[in-house]
Amino acid sequence: MTTGQCTRHPFDAVLELEFLDGRGVRGRTVPEYANMVGPFGGATAAVLLRAIEAQPDRVGEPVALTVTYAAPIAYGEFDVDVDLVRINRTNQHWMARLTQGGEMKSTAMAIFGTRRQVWSDTEEVMPAVGEPHAYPVAVWPPLVRFLHNYEARVVDGGPPTGEAAPSSVSTFWVRHTPARRLDFPALAALADVFFPRIFARLGRLVPAGTVSMTTFFHADAAELERVGEDYILATARGHRFAGGFFDQSAQLFSRGGALLATSNQVVYYKDSGLQ
Amino acid sequence: MTTGQCTRHPFDAVLELEFLDGRGVRGRTVPEYANMVGPFGGATAAVLLRAIEAQPDRVGEPVALTVTYAAPIAYGEFDVDVDLVRINRTNQHWMARLTQGGEMKSTAMAIFGTRRQVWSDTEEVMPAVGEPHAYPVAVWPPLVRFLHNYEARVVDGGPPTGEAAPSSVSTFWVRHTPARRLDFPALAALADVFFPRIFARLGRLVPAGTVSMTTFFHADAAELERVGEDYILATARGHRFAGGFFDQSAQLFSRGGALLATSNQVVYYKDSGLQ
Repeated sequence: MTTGQCTRHPFDAVLELEFLDGRGVRGRTVPEYANMVGPFGGATAAVLLRAIEAQPDRVGEPVALTVTYAAPIAYGEFDVDVDLVRINRTNQHWMARLTQGGEMKSTAMAIFGTRRQVWSDTEEVMPAVGEPHAYPVAVWPPLVRFLHNYEARVVDGGPPTGEAAPSSVSTFWVRHTPARRLDFPALAALADVFFPRIFARLGRLVPAGTVSMTTFFHADAAELERVGEDYILATARGHRFAGGFFDQSAQLFSRGGALLATSNQVVYYKDSGLQ
Repeated sequence: MTTGQCTRHPFDAVLELEFLDGRGVRGRTVPEYANMVGPFGGATAAVLLRAIEAQPDRVGEPVALTVTYAAPIAYGEFDVDVDLVRINRTNQHWMARLTQGGEMKSTAMAIFGTRRQVWSDTEEVMPAVGEPHAYPVAVWPPLVRFLHNYEARVVDGGPPTGEAAPSSVSTFWVRHTPARRLDFPALAALADVFFPRIFARLGRLVPAGTVSMTTFFHADAAELERVGEDYILATARGHRFAGGFFDQSAQLFSRGGALLATSNQVVYYKDSGLQ
């Protein structure tokens, strides 16, 4: 696409919502964010977060987001029902359900909170890596369209090469292409940017899909604004692959070493060839 | 309590449910599982998991459980509404809501799945530690009643001593006291056995409470049966403490090194003295 000043970034198309009566919103899948089957799960997480963030009585910023992927989302329109489940002094509990033709496709639970001036510290240290341009740009399979919205520079664990590996770690410098500022929905999507860790272990693509993903947001809006369009460092790995389900954890750092978010997902997999 | 053969373990009292019409169940908080304010969050997670596990059309074993703690649960009776949101070929998506007098206190989303004979591997290595009896038994504050149901042997990071520390890591060998076999609800509770990591960093107790916790179950029922009443090795740490919310991750291993579960929670905190 061109990046003329009147051209909308495709990620902003992902987040575009039509407001219905009450708390409901209507959205539409965006071809640029297609995955192999249905839309990119990160785009689904982002639009569910956005549907909550856009509510007029929403207070504070995202603290936690859990999204379950119950059924494949068809390309086209979808509806999101949003509920404010509980209001506390420093946080709000929200739920959202994404349906198509009345069929439940995805659910979300989100905590929004107001950050305060209290003792704060980052305990997790960013991996010691070189500057982004020291690393090659990942070349993704053309079929996985959503990945072409990201420029990933591979520090460790690039796209599967056909060789099995003992480690599932991938570490990338990553930013949007074309450039786009980092906001909470973009961060929610980036937490899911990693291909399933089973591909890294087996060295090949097998049927796999996220079942549930939980992201904790550590950064506030001012920190995300400071990141702007810059690279972030994202690292992911699995801990156990057991009988058709594995976990995958991810950490996302600003270039300056701020831990922006941590994310954990459980993924369904088979070990047969990709169908 | 005495452990005569006719005495029920207090954790089984936590899991005792009365089945109402439809999918609803009624439970009751158990004094032995009280925390400083309200019941132990791990007991809440356990009873929500049990309310789903007990449904007659539940298929498979727990794969993932997210529980949000929206409001303090009062001691006494509570109701749990359960919904089967989606049935897939190898998994089911469930939701549950815990209410008291109609007021929403806690929500849960759970995935149950059927494990299959596929390529499997544990990538995470258990920390290299000695046998349980090489470590001292933790002495907990008498007020935190639920902790007295667990024998924790402190490998690293015991109860706060008044000294601030640069690391939030705690590693314990832990088992039920009196003895009880490990099952999925017990594992869900054990994932929350760690005191808030902010206590470790500040060296003292401050107001803090779990907002949302997600546990991924890697073990199947046969593996839990093999653990039986034995110790498990549990380790936890925080990654970032930011403006009143921090994350806390935990890993639970069998003595033989099987990764039974991984868990992540986000916790609200203040840095003032405990009120």
